[in-house]
Amino acid sequence: MRSYIDCIPCFFYQAIRAGRIAGLSEQKILHILSRLGENIKDIDMATPPPEIGSLVYSIVNEVSGETDPYYDIKQKHIKLALSLYPRLLDYVNVSANKLDMALRISSAGNIIDLGAQSEIRNIERVLHDAINMEHRIWHSDILSEKLPAANSVLIIGDNAGETVFDKVLSSVIRNIYPEMKIYYAVRESPIINDATREDAYKSGIDEFAEIISTGCSAPGILFTQISKLFANLFEKCDIIISKGQGNYETLNDVDRDIFFLLTVKCEIVARHLNLPVGASVLYYSEVN
Amino acid sequence: MRSYIDCIPCFFYQAIRAGRIAGLSEQKILHILSRLGENIKDIDMATPPPEIGSLVYSIVNEVSGETDPYYDIKQKHIKLALSLYPRLLDYVNVSANKLDMALRISSAGNIIDLGAQSEIRNIERVLHDAINMEHRIWHSDILSEKLPAANSVLIIGDNAGETVFDKVLSSVIRNIYPEMKIYYAVRESPIINDATREDAYKSGIDEFAEIISTGCSAPGILFTQISKLFANLFEKCDIIISKGQGNYETLNDVDRDIFFLLTVKCEIVARHLNLPVGASVLYYSEVN
Repeated sequence: MRSYIDCIPCFFYQAIRAGRIAGLSEQKILHILSRLGENIKDIDMATPPPEIGSLVYSIVNEVSGETDPYYDIKQKHIKLALSLYPRLLDYVNVSANKLDMALRISSAGNIIDLGAQSEIRNIERVLHDAINMEHRIWHSDILSEKLPAANSVLIIGDNAGETVFDKVLSSVIRNIYPEMKIYYAVRESPIINDATREDAYKSGIDEFAEIISTGCSAPGILFTQISKLFANLFEKCDIIISKGQGNYETLNDVDRDIFFLLTVKCEIVARHLNLPVGASVLYYSEVN
Repeated sequence: MRSYIDCIPCFFYQAIRAGRIAGLSEQKILHILSRLGENIKDIDMATPPPEIGSLVYSIVNEVSGETDPYYDIKQKHIKLALSLYPRLLDYVNVSANKLDMALRISSAGNIIDLGAQSEIRNIERVLHDAINMEHRIWHSDILSEKLPAANSVLIIGDNAGETVFDKVLSSVIRNIYPEMKIYYAVRESPIINDATREDAYKSGIDEFAEIISTGCSAPGILFTQISKLFANLFEKCDIIISKGQGNYETLNDVDRDIFFLLTVKCEIVARHLNLPVGASVLYYSEVN
């Protein structure tokens, strides 16, 4: 997906948020915004938003001297999500359609804002709502039909914390298909609150999936950056499940069948998918 | 009120909106955003947002070659508001506290988004809600106490269309105090959908008030630009009623008793007034 002019103010909001999380003064954040502003003329709107996002966060890191300002937040999110893990498994265990429930839980992981202010009670409610949500697009049955013939699944992860919710999905796939090879791809290095190898291991997803790096440090998949291993798996895995909006924005035009499991978080993607902001979707994008 | 870093992304959104209303291509709007971006380093955050807003809209006008891109929208808003005018008077006529109702109507004029998409039915509902709104801050009684001793009232207008709602307020003040001198101040030249002299005359507010220009072309009051007439009235009028957020942002620190009648439209002003976005307020700011 290309970028749109409406993405530009959003990049400025993201820079402010990241600058605040990095503990920068208003003066330093203003300097970041100014640097970003000077770069607008060079932005190639044909590139997807996560590529421009990389630029935004690299300016923030350069000014702050931090390489991982979201580190503490990510640790908190993973810890919080791990404390919910037994409950998430209970949801699956009492469900008649375990795969569908695991997909709902994985989706919930993308919805829930495990922000510092979130209370457990609030998460419980959001989790309940997410799991019981009526989806306009939910291709759970298609995935269910395709899995028996598959030997390998590549899950492309999104945020730290969400990794624990994806662990539930991985465990369910592994339980139903004990021979299935499952890969879980994460960012090469820290970017926003996206999951890295460290985050995935801390979430314990290696119990069910092989953790690999995409090779990219952007909050999405940039084919100019991907590792050979990821390129190979992306080509050869029987099933790909792509989590979150950043991965969608960079993969939706790719010539590959992909299940996109995401929550719509901005107007641009909402228009793209013809869904309202806030909607969750499991969308099977099939190459004709 | 000074500007905040959070205002900067908002200026970009405003530029996109204005560029679209001026019918510009995405390429030209991107050029505006780039120009705006290059100007961030020179922005003086000590100045109020409407001063920076002036810069935003001057770039849009320069690129579009238009001086009044909102002209058609303003005409539509005034026409629509005039069609509601008899109904607005009915509200006043059946009310036990006519001044309070007129203030509520004037406030409704600042709430209602008379956008091209608005349906009359929707306006009816918003109007009803606005008039019946419970306000956390509503200094209607203070105004009511001060009016009998006053000889002159200066209303500082905001948007075209809202002018018709302010006409109701002017008419009620005039009916209760036939000798009251009422002034209605508008922008010197077109800026966004703010009211100019032409808009005020088309709304017929001259029936009850003398229409004057503030001398400013910003979407607020900049004391470096104000006319001598406005400066004189601002100093000497017994009562000042300032409409809308732009006037609030430029007048809230001024050494002058002012009634601010506005709807909170952004997080920054919300924090400033300790009210939620969407709240309407009649706030008497008294110099100690």
